[in-house]
Amino acid sequence: MKRAVVLLSGGLDSAAVLAWMRREGYACHALSFRYGQRHGVELARAAEIARALGAVEHKVTEIDLRAFGGSALTADIAVPKDRAEGEMSRGVPVTYVPARNTIFLAFALAYAETIGASDLAIGVNAIDYSGYPDCRPEFIAAFERLANLATASATEEGARFRIHTPLQHLTKAGIVTLALELGVPVGRTLSCYDPLPDGTPCGRCDACILRRKGFAEAGVEDR
Amino acid sequence: MKRAVVLLSGGLDSAAVLAWMRREGYACHALSFRYGQRHGVELARAAEIARALGAVEHKVTEIDLRAFGGSALTADIAVPKDRAEGEMSRGVPVTYVPARNTIFLAFALAYAETIGASDLAIGVNAIDYSGYPDCRPEFIAAFERLANLATASATEEGARFRIHTPLQHLTKAGIVTLALELGVPVGRTLSCYDPLPDGTPCGRCDACILRRKGFAEAGVEDR
Repeated sequence: MKRAVVLLSGGLDSAAVLAWMRREGYACHALSFRYGQRHGVELARAAEIARALGAVEHKVTEIDLRAFGGSALTADIAVPKDRAEGEMSRGVPVTYVPARNTIFLAFALAYAETIGASDLAIGVNAIDYSGYPDCRPEFIAAFERLANLATASATEEGARFRIHTPLQHLTKAGIVTLALELGVPVGRTLSCYDPLPDGTPCGRCDACILRRKGFAEAGVEDR
Repeated sequence: MKRAVVLLSGGLDSAAVLAWMRREGYACHALSFRYGQRHGVELARAAEIARALGAVEHKVTEIDLRAFGGSALTADIAVPKDRAEGEMSRGVPVTYVPARNTIFLAFALAYAETIGASDLAIGVNAIDYSGYPDCRPEFIAAFERLANLATASATEEGARFRIHTPLQHLTKAGIVTLALELGVPVGRTLSCYDPLPDGTPCGRCDACILRRKGFAEAGVEDR
């Protein structure tokens, strides 16, 4: 079975990606990060989801992005609450973490190379890339190009790295529908940027608002 | 003063890069990694060198590349000893660490973005890139391109990231000469892949052999 490294946060989107890659027939190695995020409780959910969806392995890598800060997720900057959608889509949100997806994909690449995989998967989508520069299709394409120059397996053994982004053109409602179709334990995913210590979502951050809207538009209840 | 992030390992090459960037007038923020490397003793040297060359700050980031392995520097794979140069230049050496420079530059990018810098510097050179894929000019160019798509500062504020590689076309002898010219405390740099716990170089790994040859060709004694 072909191996793939799947970035898994514990949120709805990356869970859907893992389920998608499983359906595509990949043996999936899930990779999560304890990076100093406010919502570290998502990692327990990631472990549950990896098990539920049959990942062969789930690694959690510790990296300290608090050492750099610069984001509402990794520094003492408030997570915006109760924003209207128009407000969310204006510029890069303060929940952007400098170079985070570059760092995550770089580790995924290292992981892939050591297990002989050349497929990576990440849950970027149409909603994210309106605000986050490192979720845009051109960023993903540039990273794919980099991966094929950066590694011994690509330059010596002729591997062709490919970054799968199955959610790229989906709205949140589309992701909800897909996730349910693929058997994702949706109720165990955590999208909130600022949950209570017990994992209860705040209900008021951008991620909670977009999730609520996605479920409403998909006509499904979020349990 | 313009700020730059300089990747600093504690070896001769990155010390020369730091000295170069200082001479170019940058306020230098040095960045090192404790990544599970066999030669972790190099980090104490990095701290000394950062101080000696007047870096404004020196951060050491912890990342666990042993979790992935796949290299003589991060796994139980022997560091090759007493190799002839012809042997060294055949293919990617086992001291190659999967995706290491991609990971290092990704962190440097995060650091740069949070301090408002758009200049990064790394000590890749003509000798390295005969063997290591992630030292080649085309890799560096691809990363620079990626950086300008990956970040809020490039996409929102019009910053242009640039990766400085002042050693790119230098041989080891050229680097030795340059380092001395720039006042690098050369005797405090550590190039060895497999030093004794007290920091004494093994004298027999590729890095020791290339360093010895470089000093010999430069007509300088390595104290």
